[in-house]
Amino acid sequence: MSGSIFGKNFKVATWGESHGKALGAVVDGCPAGISLDEEMIQKYLDRRKPGQNEFSTMRDEADCVSILSGVFEGKTTGTPISMIIYNKDQHSKDYSNIKDIYRPGHADYGFDKKYGFRDYRGGGRSSGRETAGRVMAGAVALSALKELGINVTAFTSSLGGVKCDRAAISKENIFKSPIYMPDLKASGEAEELIKNAKGDLESLGGSIDCVVTGLPAGLGEPVFDKLDALLARACMSVGAVKGVEIGAGFNVANMKGSENNDNFVASNEAGIKLLEEGRLFDDKGNFISIKKETNNSGGILGGISDGDPIYISCAVKPTPSIASEQKTINRDGEETDIVIKGRHDPVIAPRAVVVVESMVGITLMDLLMTSATSKFSTLRDVFGN
Amino acid sequence: MSGSIFGKNFKVATWGESHGKALGAVVDGCPAGISLDEEMIQKYLDRRKPGQNEFSTMRDEADCVSILSGVFEGKTTGTPISMIIYNKDQHSKDYSNIKDIYRPGHADYGFDKKYGFRDYRGGGRSSGRETAGRVMAGAVALSALKELGINVTAFTSSLGGVKCDRAAISKENIFKSPIYMPDLKASGEAEELIKNAKGDLESLGGSIDCVVTGLPAGLGEPVFDKLDALLARACMSVGAVKGVEIGAGFNVANMKGSENNDNFVASNEAGIKLLEEGRLFDDKGNFISIKKETNNSGGILGGISDGDPIYISCAVKPTPSIASEQKTINRDGEETDIVIKGRHDPVIAPRAVVVVESMVGITLMDLLMTSATSKFSTLRDVFGN
Amino acid sequence: MSGSIFGKNFKVATWGESHGKALGAVVDGCPAGISLDEEMIQKYLDRRKPGQNEFSTMRDEADCVSILSGVFEGKTTGTPISMIIYNKDQHSKDYSNIKDIYRPGHADYGFDKKYGFRDYRGGGRSSGRETAGRVMAGAVALSALKELGINVTAFTSSLGGVKCDRAAISKENIFKSPIYMPDLKASGEAEELIKNAKGDLESLGGSIDCVVTGLPAGLGEPVFDKLDALLARACMSVGAVKGVEIGAGFNVANMKGSENNDNFVASNEAGIKLLEEGRLFDDKGNFISIKKETNNSGGILGGISDGDPIYISCAVKPTPSIASEQKTINRDGEETDIVIKGRHDPVIAPRAVVVVESMVGITLMDLLMTSATSKFSTLRDVFGN
Amino acid sequence: MSGSIFGKNFKVATWGESHGKALGAVVDGCPAGISLDEEMIQKYLDRRKPGQNEFSTMRDEADCVSILSGVFEGKTTGTPISMIIYNKDQHSKDYSNIKDIYRPGHADYGFDKKYGFRDYRGGGRSSGRETAGRVMAGAVALSALKELGINVTAFTSSLGGVKCDRAAISKENIFKSPIYMPDLKASGEAEELIKNAKGDLESLGGSIDCVVTGLPAGLGEPVFDKLDALLARACMSVGAVKGVEIGAGFNVANMKGSENNDNFVASNEAGIKLLEEGRLFDDKGNFISIKKETNNSGGILGGISDGDPIYISCAVKPTPSIASEQKTINRDGEETDIVIKGRHDPVIAPRAVVVVESMVGITLMDLLMTSATSKFSTLRDVFGN
Repeated sequence: MSGSIFGKNFKVATWGESHGKALGAVVDGCPAGISLDEEMIQKYLDRRKPGQNEFSTMRDEADCVSILSGVFEGKTTGTPISMIIYNKDQHSKDYSNIKDIYRPGHADYGFDKKYGFRDYRGGGRSSGRETAGRVMAGAVALSALKELGINVTAFTSSLGGVKCDRAAISKENIFKSPIYMPDLKASGEAEELIKNAKGDLESLGGSIDCVVTGLPAGLGEPVFDKLDALLARACMSVGAVKGVEIGAGFNVANMKGSENNDNFVASNEAGIKLLEEGRLFDDKGNFISIKKETNNSGGILGGISDGDPIYISCAVKPTPSIASEQKTINRDGEETDIVIKGRHDPVIAPRAVVVVESMVGITLMDLLMTSATSKFSTLRDVFGN
Repeated sequence: MSGSIFGKNFKVATWGESHGKALGAVVDGCPAGISLDEEMIQKYLDRRKPGQNEFSTMRDEADCVSILSGVFEGKTTGTPISMIIYNKDQHSKDYSNIKDIYRPGHADYGFDKKYGFRDYRGGGRSSGRETAGRVMAGAVALSALKELGINVTAFTSSLGGVKCDRAAISKENIFKSPIYMPDLKASGEAEELIKNAKGDLESLGGSIDCVVTGLPAGLGEPVFDKLDALLARACMSVGAVKGVEIGAGFNVANMKGSENNDNFVASNEAGIKLLEEGRLFDDKGNFISIKKETNNSGGILGGISDGDPIYISCAVKPTPSIASEQKTINRDGEETDIVIKGRHDPVIAPRAVVVVESMVGITLMDLLMTSATSKFSTLRDVFGN
Repeated sequence: MSGSIFGKNFKVATWGESHGKALGAVVDGCPAGISLDEEMIQKYLDRRKPGQNEFSTMRDEADCVSILSGVFEGKTTGTPISMIIYNKDQHSKDYSNIKDIYRPGHADYGFDKKYGFRDYRGGGRSSGRETAGRVMAGAVALSALKELGINVTAFTSSLGGVKCDRAAISKENIFKSPIYMPDLKASGEAEELIKNAKGDLESLGGSIDCVVTGLPAGLGEPVFDKLDALLARACMSVGAVKGVEIGAGFNVANMKGSENNDNFVASNEAGIKLLEEGRLFDDKGNFISIKKETNNSGGILGGISDGDPIYISCAVKPTPSIASEQKTINRDGEETDIVIKGRHDPVIAPRAVVVVESMVGITLMDLLMTSATSKFSTLRDVFGN
Repeated sequence: MSGSIFGKNFKVATWGESHGKALGAVVDGCPAGISLDEEMIQKYLDRRKPGQNEFSTMRDEADCVSILSGVFEGKTTGTPISMIIYNKDQHSKDYSNIKDIYRPGHADYGFDKKYGFRDYRGGGRSSGRETAGRVMAGAVALSALKELGINVTAFTSSLGGVKCDRAAISKENIFKSPIYMPDLKASGEAEELIKNAKGDLESLGGSIDCVVTGLPAGLGEPVFDKLDALLARACMSVGAVKGVEIGAGFNVANMKGSENNDNFVASNEAGIKLLEEGRLFDDKGNFISIKKETNNSGGILGGISDGDPIYISCAVKPTPSIASEQKTINRDGEETDIVIKGRHDPVIAPRAVVVVESMVGITLMDLLMTSATSKFSTLRDVFGN
């Protein structure tokens, strides 16, 4: 039941329901001496705000973060960092139509079976609003990683069946697209689909890719805490994610060994140059490598980072809350119809981009601290004689 | 660095190198009273034996398990269960050709960067041989689950690009195929591909699917320890797995909300009948559901089991050890060629089927114990007044 | 570094500095269905308020708790319970006299060596104020335990060398004493000592005893997570505690086997009667037993509860902040004098009584949930077919 | 139920019953590059052998350790270290007299209540034989610590009421005493008491002290994972330990603040000299300090090591297995008599000395690895740019 705490050495606890008083995150185990303030965290939070992919404002809903502990004179102190955002409007709307009915595609049924009853107000803890806590904690991790020269970049890679052309992707374009889709042509098409979906009382699925650069080789703890295993868990724990790939992912099922193996090279100059230019893929849309000829491994071999950029891909399901009438059952097991009221995003993927980035950041930070003492010589340097 | 222990309440520690004296597993936290003996474990171990997909015997290599603790008079006692298999032939072969060279597609490079040096004998801890420990522990979990009426069934779903027709799959056929591919027509084609790959000094990728039946609703701990998140980690921690899907998986990226949502029904009689018949898919190759009209969720909503069968899919890369000459670097960073000697399976997927089954079993057993006290009424029943 | 999270299945995260904006606790893994509101928690918090042993009011400092999540319609929901108290006056006083100087008996020196710098305002995270978080979380645990019929009762057992006569102890008297010392004669003497100590710019040590009744047999997880081991850690983690005993404690060093062994009996009627009367010790001041003739074990044998009341004793050091001048060093390692300003309690023990009670409660609740599934028959009852 | 795994980053799993096939330990998370062989471990194991305090040999019982994994070419590899000792004689003796009867002072009753049944052969997992696993793992930790200049030294500080005069203690004398009691006069008296106790079919309690030198300041994770809290848990988890003190321990209850506070000094030359001479106490029997004037803190302030030697004291109860007839109950709750057959040590303390040393070593090693990255600058040094 204690599933709201993540990590081993860089631990994150999140709390809060969609219609409770507030939501928050506690980061326990953050090293002392990292620059941190509320503005840095707010920037990440702003990226998961509702209403952005609508070009509308809805700015009055803005989640405003406060740091309550763990930071002193602009630096982390090594003690727990507590962050909070208050819910502006947690007053009870009328939930009589869903109180005793299980919404299709939602966790309602499972929550009821698990706990015996549930907070029916907007999904409670199973609401996507829960991810605000992940983003606050993620901001701390990502800020620390940046100071170490490690950058995590996620973006919408497909939406409603429209895929980014990887060759067309640039980092800057991510923020030029209201749906964080860095192939701006694809973004335009996808935006059109979203508008139509709204009109049709429908929602759309998508996918999110994430690239990590600057990560040294040696991260990941065989055999169960492999880097890819922990990243998969981190990403799959984000609501609506139904699949995770590392590097070539499901394509490996159809590859031969000689195709899939990445030959090590003394130095891949072309790749190094691309990274210096801030690129995420090469001109052909392939993964960038600086240690190998190719990077089908996605930067991870045997569960350990190999020094190359990490490539992750996540499948995101369409918003389950759709405005059209659906069939379902109530708490008594009787079949009934349901119409879900209220405004709902017709797509989850764009707002989940920063959530994936956060979870990847938290996972890396945790592993960096865990892996730091793999060599006895390191411990000796820190503590020894 | 402590990555060889898995789980929270049903904990599994594995140990042992491919060319060390022995390999083993310790299960800590197994409830008392489960029937267990060496024969039960041996059956699972036999399924990951080398040489099976060759139709050859090589039986003298047989890994023979001993239970060293935790079982008394045929039942688990609640104390740690230690299991061991001794390596028959751990004597040093000649590794001079790979000792200082990093094999493409292997963990060699990362291990060296991480620890400062590595056990170069056959991969040491990064060898697939490590999975013997997972299977011993998995056998314990799967035996316990069976007593609870929960069955975990994995199989090779594709190999070298040949896919099983789900409509043609039956449980019995899994063991009729030497590569655990339950569409026997596809199995035949794939076996042919394997033979050719061997001749070509090549290897082939594949995929493994896993179905869980009999699991009650309510398993999984939001928000980070969601059932799907923990299953993804468990499966991705198996060497060579590069992607994991739950239910409709990456297909959800292209689906609309109304397509993807599974409507709850009072009772899906057709699905119940199929499960009773021991089926894994329906006549059209769709996922079976007993609580909903469809089962795109793969039995998991909001990270909690919904009472329906669980569907998982894993991508498995081709064996990185191929006999043809490859380019790589040595410990000094100099480019060189490498030829990997010795017999290597041209495919990983078939032998990894029982490993995926084991990891899923361990994960479920751990969550069952964690979830058992979600409701206070349960704690009251067990301990209360 | 991640030392602010406690527990395995009933997890507690605390955060907050003495002079930060707020302090709080998050309880993750609390079962659903426990009655809980702010008033219940406030009662516990009020017992650790400053100024109580002075007979003075200082009531305007009152820490006022808010529940921010995890409770719905008066019951816990199974999701994280976040609780917060805001610091009334966190504005910077003048700390120039201690900013660069290490206070004797305090954690200042270690914090500086550990993290490279420290929050010098009133001890920051090492302040006793940190225990407010423990008490909030403890209140949740203790409320749940009460619903199960398990009661945890702590009290001041000695102060400044004045010891309670155990034969004179009654439960009701705990709250009749301003220092929670249930032998009221001893309490009177100790109160006098405290007054004198204040005049002398001194402080006094003491001890806290804790008794648990209603605990079933079978709690505790051999071999490392023994009930006594986890209780010792929980109590020793309270600042100022320097020793912990279970049952006969250090007296066992001088006992013979025949003296120390407690003979099991079919039923100890005298003990049962005493418990029904709400007694903590028998008329001779001995530990009460209901399963054995005596209770030197303190209710724990082999790390597992034996069904008898649990007896724990903790040594509490005198307040290190004393008003008289002391010798010490500064950050540059130079010797200097220090005078600590501000009002400080001359004793820690009385205010720590509720903290010990809280830590014991949290530990028991965590173990109850962990132990609930020791028998496979239990798992079968909860989930099985 | 999963109580046989200890630690967070340096993890230890132990397994094995007194009358099973074998006992063992797995160390997961040991850094790579530490010198280790079987001889090093055997030396520690030999110190917990039975029969030593009898001046008899019984050497044929010698537990002989094998390292099965994790060591390559004389160095740890960073992968799990598995160690095993086989039980020479696990054949069933006649246990009919205790099979259904609960031995006083033993865990029998609790095990039965917890698990529903128990391994009645010599206590199974609750036997003191379990500690062999701790010592194997402890040997790994203590060897690593030695390479870092950290020494852990435990000894029998009292036995049957005879206490060591601390002023008379020297490190060399520990091994001159058959009961590890370094005041040889006291040792002689205690040996006499033991002989008499045997004749009287009795057993005796005692205490064990432990001193750690060379530990840097900054170890321990506030607020729950304080160094003293984790040491208390580690020591209290050793069977028969009923009390733990740090530094001045229970004496602080009677001390004034000005007495108990240790003034920091620029450098305590006298203390430094004593440590160089290999002393454990000064000429007056006081704790040694090198950072402070005195060391009542026992080297730990606010849960963090302060750079001074650590002082720990443990109370050890008399052997519960005594040869004289005792009263107890059987599984049906009926009162009966019991006579425990077989040879049993009349004292536990001397053989537990190396067990306490092991648990302290494991705890320190775990904390060293956890604390290593407290400062961000450290992480930057290890991984950063």
